[in-house]
Amino acid sequence: MIPGPFLLYLGHSSDAVGIKTSRGLAAFRPKDCLGEWRHDDCPLTLDLPRMDAAAARAAGARTLVLGIANAGGKMDDALIHDALAAISAGLSVASGLHQRLRDEPRLVRAAADAGVTLFDVRDPPADLPIGNGLPRAGNRLLTVGTDCSVGKMYATLALRDAMHARGIAADFRATGQTGIMIAGAGVPVDAVVADFISGAIEQLTPARHDAGWDLIEGQGSLFHPSFAGVSTGLLHGAQPRALLLCHDPSRAHMRGLPHYQLPSITDCLAANLSVARLTSPHVQAVGIALNTVALDEADARRLCSSVADTHGLPCTDPYRFGADPIIDWMLTCCDASTPATTVSA
Amino acid sequence: MIPGPFLLYLGHSSDAVGIKTSRGLAAFRPKDCLGEWRHDDCPLTLDLPRMDAAAARAAGARTLVLGIANAGGKMDDALIHDALAAISAGLSVASGLHQRLRDEPRLVRAAADAGVTLFDVRDPPADLPIGNGLPRAGNRLLTVGTDCSVGKMYATLALRDAMHARGIAADFRATGQTGIMIAGAGVPVDAVVADFISGAIEQLTPARHDAGWDLIEGQGSLFHPSFAGVSTGLLHGAQPRALLLCHDPSRAHMRGLPHYQLPSITDCLAANLSVARLTSPHVQAVGIALNTVALDEADARRLCSSVADTHGLPCTDPYRFGADPIIDWMLTCCDASTPATTVSA
Repeated sequence: MIPGPFLLYLGHSSDAVGIKTSRGLAAFRPKDCLGEWRHDDCPLTLDLPRMDAAAARAAGARTLVLGIANAGGKMDDALIHDALAAISAGLSVASGLHQRLRDEPRLVRAAADAGVTLFDVRDPPADLPIGNGLPRAGNRLLTVGTDCSVGKMYATLALRDAMHARGIAADFRATGQTGIMIAGAGVPVDAVVADFISGAIEQLTPARHDAGWDLIEGQGSLFHPSFAGVSTGLLHGAQPRALLLCHDPSRAHMRGLPHYQLPSITDCLAANLSVARLTSPHVQAVGIALNTVALDEADARRLCSSVADTHGLPCTDPYRFGADPIIDWMLTCCDASTPATTVSA
Repeated sequence: MIPGPFLLYLGHSSDAVGIKTSRGLAAFRPKDCLGEWRHDDCPLTLDLPRMDAAAARAAGARTLVLGIANAGGKMDDALIHDALAAISAGLSVASGLHQRLRDEPRLVRAAADAGVTLFDVRDPPADLPIGNGLPRAGNRLLTVGTDCSVGKMYATLALRDAMHARGIAADFRATGQTGIMIAGAGVPVDAVVADFISGAIEQLTPARHDAGWDLIEGQGSLFHPSFAGVSTGLLHGAQPRALLLCHDPSRAHMRGLPHYQLPSITDCLAANLSVARLTSPHVQAVGIALNTVALDEADARRLCSSVADTHGLPCTDPYRFGADPIIDWMLTCCDASTPATTVSA
């Protein structure tokens, strides 16, 4: 486990989506987040006290979280420079980038000298199995998206918290670096070897025989030309009873690809259900989660209501307005009389 | 490059599909294959002289090719024992398994002592890019399948040879261990990190500005619960003008998964075209390749004719009967007036 409290790194980032790991920790583990480290050219903030590594260490921080993400996941020199400063100050360093901290000799040497630890959260477990697609018991929900970074993790965690508030057993199954840092466990599915994508998810979400739910964090989108392979394997490995479609209505084009439009919600639902049916023939869509952060409350509520009417599914921003309509419909759709709870693993 | 001539390892295999790497080399690089090494419990043969490592070395062999495949790609003790014997005899060793030769200390030590080389063909290149889906120039055909191991590589190579016989420029782009050993280059797409599947294929098949073709070896199947993520990323990265659907009519169920039926040719064509359209809106199916090895010639020809009629596409066993009907239709579908040859990369 990564020792807290954390100093969250924003660095020189100017892309709000790019700091999603730092933002996610601030949102879901606020008590463990002591401050944010951003340079003068960084226009973003998480509304935490601004401090550098030395000040954070003095205030009791144990780990610098490099909570920034970029396509490709490489560390640049500025990032390495700041990580070295943190190590000198006595902080451990955690990273979710594809490029491993342990593969950068300067960091390895400095960490050994300082007696601190490097955590590479995007390291997949060894000895992953090949997926087998065998029917397994248990209720599983997977979040899917019209694009990357539209709020799948937030929706999944909001759903979990709302289910816990009702006394329903529900476990968050993390599949990305931010989710893994929040949950303290999970599998970074985009970092596993391609042959093992569905097997990694089968291992993460084994058969369960209670009435509870595994709530699986989705990744990417079937409509994202860079990452749809990950999303496909995740759908097959998850063997979901229920899909929750996540969408950001303010997104102008597919993330990182100005030449690609977002799919319609209708097309996206149909494609995800079709792919999911291969391993879960009775899968159902149970709701639509909108990320309405760019809208004022009245507009957000109007949009949710309109999308719900159009698609005949509950629609809400579960992080902003709660997840109750989705939970109600999910429990109605997937009650004990339906097939998935009667198969054995 | 892996030095020939080769000794092809069959070992203790009893699964005809499991020796597909050895079989592929014997079929497409016959002059480089000196013999086969099989134990008494192996009922399979490639009709090559049977010999062990020492005899092969004496006859001039340079490399033992561990040309066997299994789901998961692990080496067992019997395999390691035989590889050590080959090294002692003075042979280099090449493997396409997921488990690397270089990760087995006994082999590393023995190879260093003997002055021979270990080749891990399933090692992906470093620094793969993330796919970008940008339209790129050039004619590309991708083989897709109703299942794994149904003849996609054979169909692709047969197509290449038939195009060369007509004087058409055509390059085989290998994506699996057998294809890479045959071609001497390629990318083992099932071994790349999941985020980089489509990017690896974009890099393997860059824009081309002549009238020739990249013929891309497909992998897995959209309908295989273990590997569909690989197939999806491959479809998106390939950005194919043309799809050639490969099918083995003798296959009783999805490979390795007795609980999964094969899809129909109709469903499989529709799903592959739908996925491919994301990055290649004008993609067309140009034929169906049947692996008729289990049928006598009259039955095989009757089946090809019947499948062609049902689907309105040329259908043949390109390895057995030649690829001409498919090439004719492919060139008709994808002539110079169609969009893909007019975009710039």
